[in-house]
Amino acid sequence: MERTLFKPQDIPTGINNALKEFCRNARGDIIRMTTLAGSGHPGGSMSSLEIFALLWSQANVDPKDPLKKGRDRIVVSHGHTSPGVYATLGRLDFFDLEQVVATFRKAGSPFEGHIERSIPGIELTTGNLGQGISAGAGMALADRSNGIKNHTWIITGDGEHQKGQIAEARRFIRKLGLNNITVVVDCNGLQICGRTDRIMYTDIAAEYRADGWDVTEVDGHSIPDLYRVLRPNDNPAAPRLIMAMTVMENDSRYHGMALTPEQAGKAFAELGLPDNLEELAKIRKYTRKSTEDFQLRLPYRILDSEGTPIEYDADHRGDNRSAFGAALMDLARNNTDNLPMVFDCDLAGSVKTKQFGIEYPDHFFQSGIMEHNTATAAGGASIADKVVFWADFGVFAADETFNQHRLNDINMTNLKVVATHCGLDVGMDGKTHHCINYISLMGTLYHYNTIVPADPNQTDRVIRYSATHPGNFFIAMGRSKLPVITDENGEPFFGGIYRFEYGQHDHIRKGSDVAIVAMGNMVHNAMQTRELLLDSNISAAVYAVSCPLCISAGLLDELSGYRLVLTLEDHDRDTGMGSKKGDYTVRSFG
Amino acid sequence: MERTLFKPQDIPTGINNALKEFCRNARGDIIRMTTLAGSGHPGGSMSSLEIFALLWSQANVDPKDPLKKGRDRIVVSHGHTSPGVYATLGRLDFFDLEQVVATFRKAGSPFEGHIERSIPGIELTTGNLGQGISAGAGMALADRSNGIKNHTWIITGDGEHQKGQIAEARRFIRKLGLNNITVVVDCNGLQICGRTDRIMYTDIAAEYRADGWDVTEVDGHSIPDLYRVLRPNDNPAAPRLIMAMTVMENDSRYHGMALTPEQAGKAFAELGLPDNLEELAKIRKYTRKSTEDFQLRLPYRILDSEGTPIEYDADHRGDNRSAFGAALMDLARNNTDNLPMVFDCDLAGSVKTKQFGIEYPDHFFQSGIMEHNTATAAGGASIADKVVFWADFGVFAADETFNQHRLNDINMTNLKVVATHCGLDVGMDGKTHHCINYISLMGTLYHYNTIVPADPNQTDRVIRYSATHPGNFFIAMGRSKLPVITDENGEPFFGGIYRFEYGQHDHIRKGSDVAIVAMGNMVHNAMQTRELLLDSNISAAVYAVSCPLCISAGLLDELSGYRLVLTLEDHDRDTGMGSKKGDYTVRSFG
Repeated sequence: MERTLFKPQDIPTGINNALKEFCRNARGDIIRMTTLAGSGHPGGSMSSLEIFALLWSQANVDPKDPLKKGRDRIVVSHGHTSPGVYATLGRLDFFDLEQVVATFRKAGSPFEGHIERSIPGIELTTGNLGQGISAGAGMALADRSNGIKNHTWIITGDGEHQKGQIAEARRFIRKLGLNNITVVVDCNGLQICGRTDRIMYTDIAAEYRADGWDVTEVDGHSIPDLYRVLRPNDNPAAPRLIMAMTVMENDSRYHGMALTPEQAGKAFAELGLPDNLEELAKIRKYTRKSTEDFQLRLPYRILDSEGTPIEYDADHRGDNRSAFGAALMDLARNNTDNLPMVFDCDLAGSVKTKQFGIEYPDHFFQSGIMEHNTATAAGGASIADKVVFWADFGVFAADETFNQHRLNDINMTNLKVVATHCGLDVGMDGKTHHCINYISLMGTLYHYNTIVPADPNQTDRVIRYSATHPGNFFIAMGRSKLPVITDENGEPFFGGIYRFEYGQHDHIRKGSDVAIVAMGNMVHNAMQTRELLLDSNISAAVYAVSCPLCISAGLLDELSGYRLVLTLEDHDRDTGMGSKKGDYTVRSFG
Repeated sequence: MERTLFKPQDIPTGINNALKEFCRNARGDIIRMTTLAGSGHPGGSMSSLEIFALLWSQANVDPKDPLKKGRDRIVVSHGHTSPGVYATLGRLDFFDLEQVVATFRKAGSPFEGHIERSIPGIELTTGNLGQGISAGAGMALADRSNGIKNHTWIITGDGEHQKGQIAEARRFIRKLGLNNITVVVDCNGLQICGRTDRIMYTDIAAEYRADGWDVTEVDGHSIPDLYRVLRPNDNPAAPRLIMAMTVMENDSRYHGMALTPEQAGKAFAELGLPDNLEELAKIRKYTRKSTEDFQLRLPYRILDSEGTPIEYDADHRGDNRSAFGAALMDLARNNTDNLPMVFDCDLAGSVKTKQFGIEYPDHFFQSGIMEHNTATAAGGASIADKVVFWADFGVFAADETFNQHRLNDINMTNLKVVATHCGLDVGMDGKTHHCINYISLMGTLYHYNTIVPADPNQTDRVIRYSATHPGNFFIAMGRSKLPVITDENGEPFFGGIYRFEYGQHDHIRKGSDVAIVAMGNMVHNAMQTRELLLDSNISAAVYAVSCPLCISAGLLDELSGYRLVLTLEDHDRDTGMGSKKGDYTVRSFG
């Protein structure tokens, strides 16, 4: 089938006919996959099929080079339609379709129940509904920042549109003028418990119009009509919403339930396809492992230059967030060809990204009080060839957006989260603003390097490290101005030849009686405590732990030599650094 | 000032005049509180002031009995307007205003930077924006279930309306016909970083209209106009949105910044009020502790009858979620005067609340794919004199809604969360649906009893326990059908005279060489492992831990007597039961 790249005004007849046949066969694949697996979501897979087939066959994507630079982006947000997506991609030679049929939903297969970013052709792992539009927006923003002229289609469910994050994403896209985005809603009118309009009526078109989108309704099974509305405009005045009116075969039960072999047999007859289920079942039984075994390809951008570390003198008194802001500015000045993207949620002054916004307005994205969308959009941008920072208060950067980080984590994004105002050090705002659980939250993820720098010098080094190393970072800091940590000669401990390495702890002062192990701002308190203990002839060692999720066995061995070990952290004791056991798995990344 | 209960069509002149004077003085209080504290949010406090003063002075609320049954509900969602709320409530004798001025934002004061539910007159602790409408909706729903005829006003910010959860709450209220809700938006047009329409344009009125609300615009500083639109209608056809157009004094900087004493002096002069800041500063300096010290009053409803436990025979094979569904039905039949409320997010068939929905449709709330709103609304309902269950898959019940539980936790709600499909036992859905971190997440909260029952019998007892005990419960279970756990005589271990007690572990089998400590579905695997070890002449004891956040020192002592202790859990090892140390704080509740 020829790839038109949507150049003709209307779909050529030959391609239309080929796609019709393609979909007829792909419907058979969907039934085979789900009936053989005995589970899965055939309903939505069928209703979205013409959209999938048209986009992946006609857009600027390449089965031989799925990560091609400048490609169009096709993001599927309702990830449970994996059978439809896999049938489409398999038939377009992104991978071997037979392997999908033989292993779909089997343990160890790359073809899981919800689509995965490791599979060629798939931009984003989804399944947890409501986040695909945000991530697609982030990718489109990153592509624009990289000077790429392409189109992003984001395909979603109608039931999914009940989720609030979509309202945020819609406003974000409109505000940032991402008019090369088309959101497609598969309006099959059914969700697991019944009719979408009865479960939770949502006037999707009216809501998008209220936010300034261009809304078009189309027959979601008519390939020529779909072609016409999905074709990118040259100069769109607004982002576009396509309401694709579709029919979910059978009833809402088949939203999330496979057909029985008997039902499948009838469906094959209707489609005019052979019923080869028994033969395939045997193949499936003996296929222990898919021959397709994809590694998540990580086209991570890092900054080329870490710039020149800023050294804060021994008599400097400052807060870590200002040191972050200064390091960010220095990184930007030293990487003008590859400027980082910086996201803010209405707190730029407090989190110290304001100056960056003034000097680099095209790379600063004011995202309003919409943390969910921002965490996901920033994550999406970070896997689209940009270095991305998002700075926010700890409660918003960790607690409020925990589930967005979970999806970022699964997607192995490349996001640098700077969480300021962590701990009780947020000040007098009260309980709702106390972030005292971030170590535990980030500790349940697998790919978020978590760092709590001790002072402005270490903050400066850590920020530069995160920007020049791949992967997600969560860098936590307080609000207060505190003295610089010094060595025994009174020189800045984290200055001069000091280099930050992930997982390394710092032995700030020697001592023989007691060890004080402190984190972040509390290293300063540890130093004060040490002085007080000296007055009582107690010799206290001070250790600074900046990577509480990666405490080395070496440190624990060393600590076992002291009579008493005291931990100091601005965090809940039961879930923080002090609660970590010796055998806590080292979770590092990159 | 007379309390009209909004009976007259228009506000009586005397009350209008009194309220004008009231607001003039309260503006002085706001300046005093924030300038003395050197922080806080005077801007929004001032712009919302007439709304606060009118509602708390005229609605059916009682300073002498703030928890009066059948009262109107006034929920403030933009909790940073605490100075305005406290000035209003103090001047209406809900508490001593002087104590607020003397201790606002001081460590140990009940008057924190964001409003707290412990303070008389306040329904909900807020500050984390975007959740107040959901919680107010839950309260209105509980009141309706309790046959109360009242009105609920929810006051919000305009910047706050950028948050996606509000879109969910809006649809939920409309669907459930909660037409006695009025949402008021303080449209002062400013947020921390500048003008709301520039930060993130949101056409609030159009969005609400799209979802079927009745929208009215009003001058938010005109007390007679506000009275007219805030007055409850007799038979409203839809919930109402009031766009209160207000002016934020000074500029957006004063959204979140106090005036200096000099600026305050000028403001007092403009208001015709005395500048007594110096004198108050002295009082504040020497007031170590507020004489007002409120305990959170907990009008918790529990079910009167725990019904009759259902006993599953030794040869029964079933899943815990079906046992939950059956226990729920039995509880309902035995508490017809006090039926629990049950919330669902489009998964009733899988989480086994479908039958309850069929038999008790007025107490079953299908909330669609809107987990954020549901978690908060269910939390709100649970502190409005109802027993409330919300059942959902683990990833939605824990990960997706973590931050909603955090606010519930701070509010010490009374919610029973039943998390099904936890662990890898969710089956073949893949990574986005694996909830393997719930122990760690719930462990960062302070008032969520977390229980992982071992089999259908224990599930039955646990569900009854949660419904007849106050406080939040998080009850986690898998998906699979598994055998019943038996005692050494082959009788059901959790049947007969067994009674569940929070924090108690169960010693299922004695053994001398090895101890296997298992949780939930894995207790069955522990039993199988024990059999296998017996073949090699290894004697293994089996312990079942159902309360992983409350492991007793006694159990740990006992375990220290074995040469080897093996933990088995369908959870991430590093953050689950097996990671808990001996001195882990017992976090129980109720």
